Amino acid sequence: MRAALMQRGKIWVDTVSDPIPQAGEVLVKTRACGICGSDLHAARYTEAFVNTSREAGGAFKLTTFDPVVLGHEFSAEIVDYGPDTPHDLPVGQLVCSVPMLARAQPLAVGYSSEIPGGFAEYMVLSRSLLLPVPNGAPDTHAAMTEPMAVGLHAVNKARLGGNETILVLGCGPVGLAIITALRQRGAGPIAAADYSPRRRELALGQGAHVAIDPKDGSAFDAREIERSDDVVIFECIGVPGSIDKIFLAAPRNARIVVVGVCLEMDHSRPLIAINKELSVQYVLGYTLDEFGQTLRNIADGSFDVAPLITARVGLDGVAGSFEALRDPERHAKILVEPWRT
Amino acid sequence: MRAALMQRGKIWVDTVSDPIPQAGEVLVKTRACGICGSDLHAARYTEAFVNTSREAGGAFKLTTFDPVVLGHEFSAEIVDYGPDTPHDLPVGQLVCSVPMLARAQPLAVGYSSEIPGGFAEYMVLSRSLLLPVPNGAPDTHAAMTEPMAVGLHAVNKARLGGNETILVLGCGPVGLAIITALRQRGAGPIAAADYSPRRRELALGQGAHVAIDPKDGSAFDAREIERSDDVVIFECIGVPGSIDKIFLAAPRNARIVVVGVCLEMDHSRPLIAINKELSVQYVLGYTLDEFGQTLRNIADGSFDVAPLITARVGLDGVAGSFEALRDPERHAKILVEPWRT
Repeated sequence: MRAALMQRGKIWVDTVSDPIPQAGEVLVKTRACGICGSDLHAARYTEAFVNTSREAGGAFKLTTFDPVVLGHEFSAEIVDYGPDTPHDLPVGQLVCSVPMLARAQPLAVGYSSEIPGGFAEYMVLSRSLLLPVPNGAPDTHAAMTEPMAVGLHAVNKARLGGNETILVLGCGPVGLAIITALRQRGAGPIAAADYSPRRRELALGQGAHVAIDPKDGSAFDAREIERSDDVVIFECIGVPGSIDKIFLAAPRNARIVVVGVCLEMDHSRPLIAINKELSVQYVLGYTLDEFGQTLRNIADGSFDVAPLITARVGLDGVAGSFEALRDPERHAKILVEPWRT
Repeated sequence: MRAALMQRGKIWVDTVSDPIPQAGEVLVKTRACGICGSDLHAARYTEAFVNTSREAGGAFKLTTFDPVVLGHEFSAEIVDYGPDTPHDLPVGQLVCSVPMLARAQPLAVGYSSEIPGGFAEYMVLSRSLLLPVPNGAPDTHAAMTEPMAVGLHAVNKARLGGNETILVLGCGPVGLAIITALRQRGAGPIAAADYSPRRRELALGQGAHVAIDPKDGSAFDAREIERSDDVVIFECIGVPGSIDKIFLAAPRNARIVVVGVCLEMDHSRPLIAINKELSVQYVLGYTLDEFGQTLRNIADGSFDVAPLITARVGLDGVAGSFEALRDPERHAKILVEPWRT
């Protein structure tokens, strides 16, 4: 089959062996797979990504960065079943799955050299983790389940009481997913900050009440934030120094939810956070329940994901898309459709 | 009156003017005043202490570090009333107060050059903030209200559900106050870690269930911690790097309460915290309610503070005590009794 391979930042298309489903697994045809900020990180900072994940006893379960087929935000259709696997969903059924293969030694789909991720024509997935896509939702929308689940999880971890004023810093796909989940549950007011006009426009479209250009002044000076004594800040930037900047600018007792993944050693002054009694909740991923809930929300239209999909490319477009995603003006989410020619 | 003065780390005893109570204030005779880790910090890192506090819009309300009479953990007795101040407590009454003078521009008692802190024979305090010491509790115990309130507040901010396993890192006065407050509410099991045998012994005395010498292995390897999936860690060390070490060693979903004051720029790897979904609550000080509750707990014996008082000195002993407190084997809390000769 054809696949886009990545090795230490280099991306190319090649022919690789089709994956073979084991017992309890299905062979699927990849219908659409989003390019994630973590994929860009993995390509750009391969060494740090692997090392830090290992040190952390990582949820990423990275094994190696020999050539790997990335891609963990996918929808797919069932093609065949592995041995001893109940055929309880029809061939051709559109499905989603958390990007994890439930083998004795679990493998992260999209971050393992043993099995292909979604930037390939076929994948193998665990039958037990498959979720049929309901309501005839299109495959492109279903592929948004994984990144939108990250937003839902971050919002759940914030344990909102209902009276918070919310500031979302950074309106890339993660920030936009958070805004979508916040708005769906009626939280807010929501202020969103991003240097990119395009992203601010998307933020307003997903439900932010106000969108701020940090060039025009600190997002923390927005009237909504100044008036509130219960501020929750979602950090969706993930560059070194952003947490220290938040410590300095945040109001007393603010709660910070760190969703942006900063791979490098970071620095901050605890005394600033201590003086204001700030709290920081670091979050990652989602639960199986949250993933399923997200798929249902997408399928019933309560999470509107269509505006977030800004391009669809074939395998030959993967390398160029990794480049294009560095410009925040051009794209939110690019979907790879491996069968597209 | 006689007072111990501090200027950029130098400490000496001198004669200074008696403070004069304004309207709403009382003149008090200082009975006992503890030396706090923050006093040591302020003496040792004066510049950083002032700058960072200012930058943070500081709860410390530092004004300057011209010669200052430190001391904010005190008990005192009423000597006289300022003008237009109701004489509703008898002269001679033993009192405590949060270390704050409620003037139009509030002053931090013990951190302001305009008024003396507790390392002087007399102070002025706001009548509205005075709490009579109940149950005939001794002045030495009442002077422990402030540091013990820090412990109670940290425990309150941890929002314990009741099933947590607790690890207290660092058994100086703050760690010991936390252990005392935890035990009083029946929380635990409590594991306490400190390199000092004396401090470990004090920790066990205040109610820790197990005391760990980090030289013998990580506190995180203690059986109690390994078995629990709901771990709360109180960071009471406050040196650069300790938060990163906790990120590395902590189990998934651990909640970290940072009470130790690290004045310097600190570094940590957010990705480690993200992978484990850790949370960090930075805390400072206490509320007025918590301060009053702590005084009642001390007076009724539910906070046993006697073992924590390891020396009592006069003003001439202040400079030497600042030195002595650098050795964790020798002391927990040293009380200054300005009238002691």
